[in-house]
This record gives sequence, C-alpha cells and structure tokens, in this order.
Amino acid sequence: MRIELLTVGDELLLGDTVNGNVAWLGRRLADHGVEVTRSVVVGDELDVIVEAVNSALGRADAVITTGGLGPTYDDLTRDALAKAAGVALRRDPSLERRLRERVARAGRELQPMALRMADVPEGARILGNSAGSAPGLRVELPGGIVYALPGVPFEMRTIMDEVVLPELAAIAGLPAVARRTLRTAGMWESVVATRLAEVEAMDGVRLAYLPDPAEVKIRISVAGDDAAERLAGVEARVRELLGPAVYGADEETLDRVVHRLLAERSATVATAESLTGGLIGAELTGMPGSSATFAGGVVAYATEVKRRALGVPGELLAEHGAVHPDVAAAMAAGVRDALGATYGIAATGVAGPEPQDGRPVGTVYVGVAGPEGPPVVAGPKLPVPGSGAESRGVIRRMTVVHALDLLRRLLLGLDVEDASGKARADREDLA
Amino acid sequence: MRIELLTVGDELLLGDTVNGNVAWLGRRLADHGVEVTRSVVVGDELDVIVEAVNSALGRADAVITTGGLGPTYDDLTRDALAKAAGVALRRDPSLERRLRERVARAGRELQPMALRMADVPEGARILGNSAGSAPGLRVELPGGIVYALPGVPFEMRTIMDEVVLPELAAIAGLPAVARRTLRTAGMWESVVATRLAEVEAMDGVRLAYLPDPAEVKIRISVAGDDAAERLAGVEARVRELLGPAVYGADEETLDRVVHRLLAERSATVATAESLTGGLIGAELTGMPGSSATFAGGVVAYATEVKRRALGVPGELLAEHGAVHPDVAAAMAAGVRDALGATYGIAATGVAGPEPQDGRPVGTVYVGVAGPEGPPVVAGPKLPVPGSGAESRGVIRRMTVVHALDLLRRLLLGLDVEDASGKARADREDLA
Repeated sequence: MRIELLTVGDELLLGDTVNGNVAWLGRRLADHGVEVTRSVVVGDELDVIVEAVNSALGRADAVITTGGLGPTYDDLTRDALAKAAGVALRRDPSLERRLRERVARAGRELQPMALRMADVPEGARILGNSAGSAPGLRVELPGGIVYALPGVPFEMRTIMDEVVLPELAAIAGLPAVARRTLRTAGMWESVVATRLAEVEAMDGVRLAYLPDPAEVKIRISVAGDDAAERLAGVEARVRELLGPAVYGADEETLDRVVHRLLAERSATVATAESLTGGLIGAELTGMPGSSATFAGGVVAYATEVKRRALGVPGELLAEHGAVHPDVAAAMAAGVRDALGATYGIAATGVAGPEPQDGRPVGTVYVGVAGPEGPPVVAGPKLPVPGSGAESRGVIRRMTVVHALDLLRRLLLGLDVEDASGKARADREDLA
Repeated sequence: MRIELLTVGDELLLGDTVNGNVAWLGRRLADHGVEVTRSVVVGDELDVIVEAVNSALGRADAVITTGGLGPTYDDLTRDALAKAAGVALRRDPSLERRLRERVARAGRELQPMALRMADVPEGARILGNSAGSAPGLRVELPGGIVYALPGVPFEMRTIMDEVVLPELAAIAGLPAVARRTLRTAGMWESVVATRLAEVEAMDGVRLAYLPDPAEVKIRISVAGDDAAERLAGVEARVRELLGPAVYGADEETLDRVVHRLLAERSATVATAESLTGGLIGAELTGMPGSSATFAGGVVAYATEVKRRALGVPGELLAEHGAVHPDVAAAMAAGVRDALGATYGIAATGVAGPEPQDGRPVGTVYVGVAGPEGPPVVAGPKLPVPGSGAESRGVIRRMTVVHALDLLRRLLLGLDVEDASGKARADREDLA
C-alpha cells in the first residue's frame, strides 16, 4: 500500500513552523510497514489543495492530509475535499452540538466562524476526535481514499492511532516489521556508530540514529517473517556492544528510568540547579506520579542563593567561584538536607555565551549526594555547538542528561569516576 | 517569482529526520519577498526525482532541491538532473582535485564512491561551496532553473546566502514585502481572529496565525511599494484591536519582555513552582544576562516543601490542599522573602491526568507578590487538551505563560482582577 502525505498551511511554506507531523506520520506508517512515497506541502489555497489531492491519488492508494481543518477563513481542507468529490458541505448537527457544549464547558463564547468545524462534505465519514475540537474526515474520491486530519499534533496522532492505522492495517495485510529504539546517554554518536558497525552489516537489519543534542537513540528495524525473534537477538547484541550506556528502550525516557530506580529503593531526590534554571526539576516532573520520588528543588541561580539556600560555604565560592566540582558537591548535599530527600542532584556550569568565573563555555559539573559517602561529581567536557542563543539551550539540555545519567549509574552501582578536584571525568565514553 | 522546494531523501519519508531545511529556506525566501508555492519530499529514486523536478518546473519559475548530492549510491540528484536535461555527467577535474586534497588534509582515505561528488551534468554551473565537500549545481532545464544544494544544513545555507539568493534577487526584481510578527498572551485564538477580521480584509495584507499551545502569534505581511509604511499602520491597528494582550514583536519572547521590565525598574524576581516543576525558572534563564533580574527559585513539588521552604501556612494546606489561590499567594510572598527578590511569582495547580486535592485537571492558580500590597492571583481556566502525557505538558506550558504574563501586566500597571477567594479570574480574555 502506497500513501502520500499532504500538509496544508501557508505557515509551513513560510518557514514559520517546522513540519513535525510528517516526520511522526512517516515513522508511524513505516512501523506498520506502510510506505510513504511522497510528502507535499501546499498553501491555504482551495484549488491548489484540490489539485494536490487529485494528483497524489493518481500516484498512490491513499492520501493523508493534515491541516486546514481549523475554524478560520484560511482553513480550506473541508472545502477542497468537497470540491474534489463534487459534493456540498453540510453542517452536521451532532458535531455542532458537541462544539457548542465544549465551548460552553470552557466558559467561552462560540465564535460564528468556529461553526465551520461542524461542516462535513456530503458522504464523508467523520473520524471522531476524542482529543480536540476538529474531527478528522474520511472522503472517498475516484482516485482513492483521503484521510483528513487536524494539524494539531496531539489531535492528529490520536485519530491516526485510534482510527486510521487500524483501518489501513485491516485493508492492506501489511508485512511484519519489528522495531525497537534503544536509548543511550554518555557516549558520543561516532563511538556508538563505530561499535555497531557489525550490526549495520546484518541482512534485513536497519539502524537509524535519531538526532538529539544530548542523547543517542538507535532505532533498530528488522523485516521478515521471524522479525520479532530476530529483533530480540539484534537488541541483545547491541546492548552487549554498548554496555551501560544503554539506559532504556522505546518510550522509557531517562527521567522515567530514574523514577523507577528510586521507587524500587523507596528513595526520593531533590534538585539543586544553577545554569539549568529548573530544567532538571521540569524533566523529573514530566511523568504522572513523579511526586512519589521527586521532593522538589532549589534553583540557585545567583551565587548568593547557593550560599543562603543550600549552605555552599562562602569561602569556597569566594575562592573558586560558582563553577567548581566542590560547589556541585556542596549543592547536592545541601539540597538533599534542606528538602529531606534521600538523594540530592546538582548542576553548575557555564552555558554561555560568555565565560564565567574564569571558566570557558561548556564547563559543567554535575553532582549526586546520597545517603552514604561523599558526593560524587562528574565533569563531562561538553562540545560547544557553535555560538549564541542556541548553544546555551544545547549545553543546558546536555547538562540535564548528564546529571540524570550520573544518578542512574550510581543507583545501579556502576563504576563512576569522581571528578572532585579534577577538571574533568576520565570516564572513557565521556572524554 | 514562484519557487518550489524539492527535498530528496528516504530518511525524511521514513520520519527519521525532521525537515528543518525547508523551514529555513521558506523563511529566508519569504524575507526576500520570494514566494514558495509548494514543498515536495521524494525518496532516493532516480525517475521519481526526475518527474518531481519536471512537474515542479511546470508550475513554478525555479526549483531549489536539497539532498541527494552526497557520495553514496543513494545520492541520485546529479544523475536525475542530467537525465532531466538530457545530458551526460562529466567528471570535473578541478572538483576532483579539490576533493582529493580535502580528504588528504583530513588524513583520511578517499573512497572511490566519493568521486561521484565531482560529477557534473554537462552544461551545469558549479555553485562553489566554501563550507563543505559537495558543491551545489545550477542546471537550466526547458521548464526553468534548478538550484541543487547539499542537504547538510550549514552547507545548504552557505550556498543559498552566498550564491543563490543574490542571483534570485538580481533576476527577479523582487517586490518589497514587509513582515512583522506580533506576540500575544492571555487571549484565545478564536477571539484574536474575530477581532482581526477587518485587518484580514485589507488589500495586500496577509495574516498568518502561528500555532503554539500557549500563545497566539500573528504574522502580518504587507506587499507593495510602500510596504514598510503600510505595515506600520497595520501593526498599529492590530495593537489597537488586541490591546494589552500584545506583549511583544518578532523575537521578543515573553521572558525577554519580563526581564526588560524588571531591569527598567531595577527589580528582581524569584519563582515558586509546583506543577511546573522548574519550567518557569528555565524560561527565565534562557536568555544570556538573565542573572541581572532572576535570583532563583524553589520547586516546592511536595506539599510539605511548600510549608517548610516557602512558609505556606500548614492550616491553609490542611484545609484547602495545595491547589488554592491563597496557596499561590503565600508561595509567591514566601519565595520573594526567602530569596530576597523584589517580586515572587508562583504557580500551583493540577497538570493531570488525575485530579488533585479535589480539583479537576486544568485548575491552575498563578500568583505574583510585589514590594507593595497583597499578592495578586489569577486563576485562568485552562482548556484540557485531551488526556495523558501530552496534556500534562501543554497544561504546564500554559501555566508558565500565564504566570509570566501576570507579572508583565502588573509591572505595566495594567488592570488585573484578583482571583483570591474566587474560583477563577473574570478577565474577559482569559474566560
């Protein structure tokens, strides 16, 4: 089965938005063995959308459109599908009622223009959208089937997973493809790729390295009748080759792994952050139920706050400034005690663009203080990705990953070389 | 002048990579008044690329391709352009020499396959690439001109800026287009669109609503000889229609506006966060130089931490739980005092997916405590975008925006109705 994607929206052609939807759709469809043969983006113009739908159906079996289903005058996908099908739009009473109820529940007033979201081409099937206001539509045209989805990512994905993918799978009798993404932290992509060269060479196995500034994710795909079985073997080999750098699989993000390890030990963690500004705490509170293991934290941005709120010795700050392994250690122990947590995790460093306290951009120390023994500090040497605003964000993100990964390794009893007193850690995969 | 973009590469259709290149190209071309009328992605298949180039030239004046110029067998753009032009590929001696020198300088061995990067369709012009190994190509076809660029973002952008854009500007005598993005917070998109209907109707004026879960951004474009002048008038009218919901323009993000307002008043702010976990602090530390106005904060995730670290009265927490306007007020005042800042900003609420302390998902209170008077609390009724992990993220992001916007409005002396004691704010644009 061949599918084309059609995205509708001026903002994409103007570069105001990056097309994340088609990346998600491409991957989801590939997971189910469905080939996306082309992806087209057109603007908010009725006849252009009509032409694009028709020419796509001239090449493929079905088209999935995203965008153009909102309430504004620019939203023309419904109109285009009606025109392509040679039918009129009718206002669906049940859609209208749900729209009115939804708006009333939110205590708002319904804008007349918004009722366009209850319009449906005659003969089209409404694809229920439990997640939002605009429903999807399924329209049969002479050339094939069109699934029209909202552009809002969460709504689009919901309808795809709940309605469209099951239908496509039922129609197409798709080949078996087994996939698994392994997630790693603390190992450079080139080192990962070099170690996995033998796996790349295996028949029927595809490795994709999924870009992320701070982690390396490896997507393993195996096709064929015994796909799931082969996948298990390939996964085991990859884990063997990469060792403890592999922290989880698929949707098991690093914060979830940390929460699980803490919960298994009936432990809690508190965060002491400087350059990360609250990002470690934000990461640790993304998951529902995180309150079982995350107590809270202190964002000690100003040097004085490190002293007052976390008890970092004034002489230490006066002598070395805020960017020093001993400061990371004191911050970690200080927040552990201040918030009464089992573990304290801390990060201090230079996000840029200017050096700080005599330390260059990219100098970062992450520390973990536990219930026993002195705090452990790692000083990963972060590569500085260009300059300017974007690099601040990347350095902060990398720091979050290194901090959580340090806690993970300690909880697992893995070897961690303490950087206290040294400028950087000697851990081979962080050098 | 109308241009289409053609991206070549299986990895994009498989969703392994997001198409950042076309977003950059779209914006760059739009900045120069060149309209991108369509953007197509095809896979690494020779005849598909040929067909896509030809049909694009049937619709537009020129095509810019990215990808397919690398050294592997999958890289077929050169071959496709030669086929479309009906000419052969010739190996360019000077390109071959530069390639060999480059590889030798890097201490690597030249793979024979890599010499394909020195192949050029007969009659094509080489677009020098100071930034990388594969040059760009300019090919004249019967239907129009093709500019073929490498897929590596930095190399693509370099050739565009150094060679292609100047050439397009010279050819096209481009019309003047003036653009400005206005940024708003605290007003629903449908309300914004309804108020701006009269502006949408103006000749030569285009409005695009740029999606964001928590803010509404409006991109105003005006074309014509007096574009910049007309834009100023349109912008003034939009600001008049939307009032104080407009907080900034272009790259002036909400955190930057807040920093500026604080700096102008020689004031600092500290954050007290619950459901947001550190996101407000992270937002306020994104900008270089934020330490001048951001002192730090407390992530009081556990209810006990609200009492111990921020001094929220135990009886208040015992009686009402943590999700209450008076708790937001106490958190804001508590962190202001604990960190010695001029202002304290606080957020407490229910991110979901479960209700908390008897309050439904989406119940949020944001508070600001200043140097004078009691704290002010707003209780915006957030729409719950579906359920599950993604809605937690959206509710948290919306809370960050509402918190920063409340501080902004207070610093500007705008009317803010205090929600203390009431279940939600009566502010008309937040209802």
